[in-house]
Amino acid sequence: MLPLLTRIDHVGIACRDLDRAIRLYQETFGLEVASLEVNEEQGVREAMMQVGTGFGVRAGAGELGVGYVQLLEPLAADTPVGKFLARRGEGLHHVGYGVVDVRQALAAIGGTGIRLIDERPRHGSMGASIAFLHPADLGGVLTELVQAASPA
Amino acid sequence: MLPLLTRIDHVGIACRDLDRAIRLYQETFGLEVASLEVNEEQGVREAMMQVGTGFGVRAGAGELGVGYVQLLEPLAADTPVGKFLARRGEGLHHVGYGVVDVRQALAAIGGTGIRLIDERPRHGSMGASIAFLHPADLGGVLTELVQAASPA
Repeated sequence: MLPLLTRIDHVGIACRDLDRAIRLYQETFGLEVASLEVNEEQGVREAMMQVGTGFGVRAGAGELGVGYVQLLEPLAADTPVGKFLARRGEGLHHVGYGVVDVRQALAAIGGTGIRLIDERPRHGSMGASIAFLHPADLGGVLTELVQAASPA
Repeated sequence: MLPLLTRIDHVGIACRDLDRAIRLYQETFGLEVASLEVNEEQGVREAMMQVGTGFGVRAGAGELGVGYVQLLEPLAADTPVGKFLARRGEGLHHVGYGVVDVRQALAAIGGTGIRLIDERPRHGSMGASIAFLHPADLGGVLTELVQAASPA
């Protein structure tokens, strides 16, 4: 079986105060904001803090060496990240891996018996197509597949 | 300030049964074991599952595009990972970032006021020099710095 995962795309971190978390990663590690977005569907305000230089943008499967720290602040208490914060506090929330084709990857992974949170891709950060896999089938790890936006 | 972090080196995942976790990542994602080690000092048996192809080995700061899923099984209940499992269950345990020079990085980060778990580097997976930063100062995220072993 060929590896489905091309890279560690990002680590998702739940935080209560996005602006404060951004400052922390800037001041501690010198990371900069690559993207700042509100995702109403997922109920978060989020920042992608770039790790590594690579080619400077998330440009597809051939792109190497860039990852992101994704800082997630819930828009409300009754969102997934809001509930996570209430239950577990701030900290690591999920990991996102790069894939070449998220639909193909979902079909392949679903075929192994892993439950899919998203049967079909939805919109993620920076124009990516993403889908989540169920943590109960993956050793407690909420796992995201990320197909980066095609270069314009 | 220059970025200290060159890449997402790995995500550390706590598991109760390492062999079962390895099979899960092989069968679900096609990942293969790059390294299987016992680290008595840290109280773990662990596997590094390679994500992405890059140059095939963790060869230093210039190396791009390879990351690892680090699966961690505690050697005993009274180890850090054993206590983590008892408190939080299986799941994401820490994140490790690549740095060029772990001693310089510790000095720079310590200088910003972040508490260091390791004042000096210790031995990590695959011959790396590593050090942990305190999660209480980093939004609940146990954070590791990884200086890869120099190429032989």
